[in-house]
Amino acid sequence: MDVYEESLRLHAALRGKYEVRSLVEVKDKHALSVAYTPGVAQPCREIAKNPDSAYTYTRKWNTVAVVSDGSAVLGLGNIGGLAGLPVMEGKSILFREFAGIDAVPIVLSGQSEEDIVKTVEMIAPSFGGINLEDICAPKCFAVERRLKEKLDIPVFHDDQHGTAIVVAAALLNALRLAGKSLSAAKIVVCGAGSAGIAIAKLLLESGAGDVTLVDRQGIVCEGEAWLTSAQAEMAKITNPGRLRGALADAVKGADVFVGVSAPRQLTGEMVRSMAEKSVVFAMANPEPEIYPEEALAAGAFVVGTGRSDFPNQINNVLAFPGVFRGALDVRAKDISEGMKVAAARALADLVGSDLSRDCVIPSPFDARVAPAVAKAVAEQAKKEGLARI
Amino acid sequence: MDVYEESLRLHAALRGKYEVRSLVEVKDKHALSVAYTPGVAQPCREIAKNPDSAYTYTRKWNTVAVVSDGSAVLGLGNIGGLAGLPVMEGKSILFREFAGIDAVPIVLSGQSEEDIVKTVEMIAPSFGGINLEDICAPKCFAVERRLKEKLDIPVFHDDQHGTAIVVAAALLNALRLAGKSLSAAKIVVCGAGSAGIAIAKLLLESGAGDVTLVDRQGIVCEGEAWLTSAQAEMAKITNPGRLRGALADAVKGADVFVGVSAPRQLTGEMVRSMAEKSVVFAMANPEPEIYPEEALAAGAFVVGTGRSDFPNQINNVLAFPGVFRGALDVRAKDISEGMKVAAARALADLVGSDLSRDCVIPSPFDARVAPAVAKAVAEQAKKEGLARI
Repeated sequence: MDVYEESLRLHAALRGKYEVRSLVEVKDKHALSVAYTPGVAQPCREIAKNPDSAYTYTRKWNTVAVVSDGSAVLGLGNIGGLAGLPVMEGKSILFREFAGIDAVPIVLSGQSEEDIVKTVEMIAPSFGGINLEDICAPKCFAVERRLKEKLDIPVFHDDQHGTAIVVAAALLNALRLAGKSLSAAKIVVCGAGSAGIAIAKLLLESGAGDVTLVDRQGIVCEGEAWLTSAQAEMAKITNPGRLRGALADAVKGADVFVGVSAPRQLTGEMVRSMAEKSVVFAMANPEPEIYPEEALAAGAFVVGTGRSDFPNQINNVLAFPGVFRGALDVRAKDISEGMKVAAARALADLVGSDLSRDCVIPSPFDARVAPAVAKAVAEQAKKEGLARI
Repeated sequence: MDVYEESLRLHAALRGKYEVRSLVEVKDKHALSVAYTPGVAQPCREIAKNPDSAYTYTRKWNTVAVVSDGSAVLGLGNIGGLAGLPVMEGKSILFREFAGIDAVPIVLSGQSEEDIVKTVEMIAPSFGGINLEDICAPKCFAVERRLKEKLDIPVFHDDQHGTAIVVAAALLNALRLAGKSLSAAKIVVCGAGSAGIAIAKLLLESGAGDVTLVDRQGIVCEGEAWLTSAQAEMAKITNPGRLRGALADAVKGADVFVGVSAPRQLTGEMVRSMAEKSVVFAMANPEPEIYPEEALAAGAFVVGTGRSDFPNQINNVLAFPGVFRGALDVRAKDISEGMKVAAARALADLVGSDLSRDCVIPSPFDARVAPAVAKAVAEQAKKEGLARI
């Protein structure tokens, strides 16, 4: 039985992966009067006087909404909110399992930017944070930007920033091993969609000096007619050599290839054209841009993928639980670029003396991960004045 | 320590009354690949092909959103969504405790009819039902009507229909004891807001022949200038005698007084003016329209209130858990008037041989209540073709 069949059977047996439990037993009239009416009027009055006390008297302090319109679900494309619900339930239970967070899957019936922004703004009071998930580009950029402006709780599009944090962490360690600096490394990010752009931004924020994005139509360079508006913005801060051409042109002499594109984009020949001790993170799913065996044979020094059956799995679950745990712990108003960089550094540092070509990133099941990321994120939030406590 | 202080302390100690638990342990790579990627793609594909299979592969079959804009919270008035969150959390855990339902509190940042309708429509795919709560009149009528039209899952404004079901049940039994028929009884409903109107409608639907609504400005009668549009609609189907005047005029010779208005509206003198073996349900909270002692002294035959410290407590918790349980059990598309009538009859019938002047309605802690209500609601849904299974 393959993993798809096994998953379908599990889902049919469980009929959903989460449940909502009560923390109060309501067995008699007295319990009812304290947990509900009339007693409940008192915490209501307190919150009406002081809205921040919602973090004291309700579950807001520990809740995250996992919101999706289902417009870009896994490799399945635009299957709509309802069909994306198994993914959002899965994400929600990972919040619980990895970081003790109460996460609620919220899938949407509409897909317009306006409708998504309005809906999340409307439901935000119930939650301490918003995890946007599987929303297609370029809509996801505007949705996130507008919600970050409107809301006083963290908003985080995991497909962008979760991936970026884990890539940055793995890259910090891979370059450490290769004896190269992030500032000098020539980095190519293949796939200039939401994940690729977020990776490029976070690497620049972390100190990278030479990042070049490549999309299906070629290298993202100022002046190219096919650039989306998000790509045009990125063209201003990436590709310092004003390179034009295809992926093969971009990777020539590059130190790092980061792929969030499509299967089999990177050939052994291209890897051979890269600099010495090259790093290849090929994260297309389920088939990577190049298989590890082939990349290593072509001379790559460190290879990672998105898959659990090869070493160096770049897995979002290393980031989002700890990021939200840290943000919730200090009642953060936002998740800043600085908090993401702090998360990446903490994740990289956890590898410690285990660091090797086959181990540039911790295992998702290393119990130290979420607490370490949370601590770094919370401390950075405080430094930046984004923490309420 | 009074109940308010005790409630505040409980809320501060718990920091929220619910939690979201995982039904899957995710302890290793294999578990992750089955519960989440890549395996989860399979239930997604199935739901994309057949939307109804969301009831098989996700938690939709057992979930209810408890949605409020906080515009009419308990006796506190318009305190807003966030301040209403303790009530919605309380409601959510009652769904769990009394009917095993996974209910999620969703409080809103906006209060316009448009915004509420749009938001609930947007988040509906995650849920098997929508419980509207503490939304003020007349907005609640339009919100509920529009959502019932738009959505293919049950939408139920509990402040209206939950109350109406329990009143109808208690009244069926009280009239049985008094030897009167519902069709002949002269019934006065004091308070022509959302609850009062819903009570009047459900009593008419259940077979009542003479129902008269009274609001602050007097008896609801066709042609009165002060009627709201909802009251004007009701004037067409109530008050068959075209009575005008004040509450005292309405209750003269009446068999039944149902109060959902304000403290101390009904005097002993008014009760004395009612028919023999009169029924008085005085449900204003925390102070009833008349205290039971006074009503009984003035000759009332059966007296009920909303309070747990007197006999015959008219408590919504007798209705909404079983109503939603039944609707979810058959994947109902709607909750019809017929399903509400069936719920009221089932609730009334449960009292059985315990029926007495001090016991016209079961205790909220009678474990038979929710299953009996659920069964009646589910059967009626099937009869009316509103059940999916």
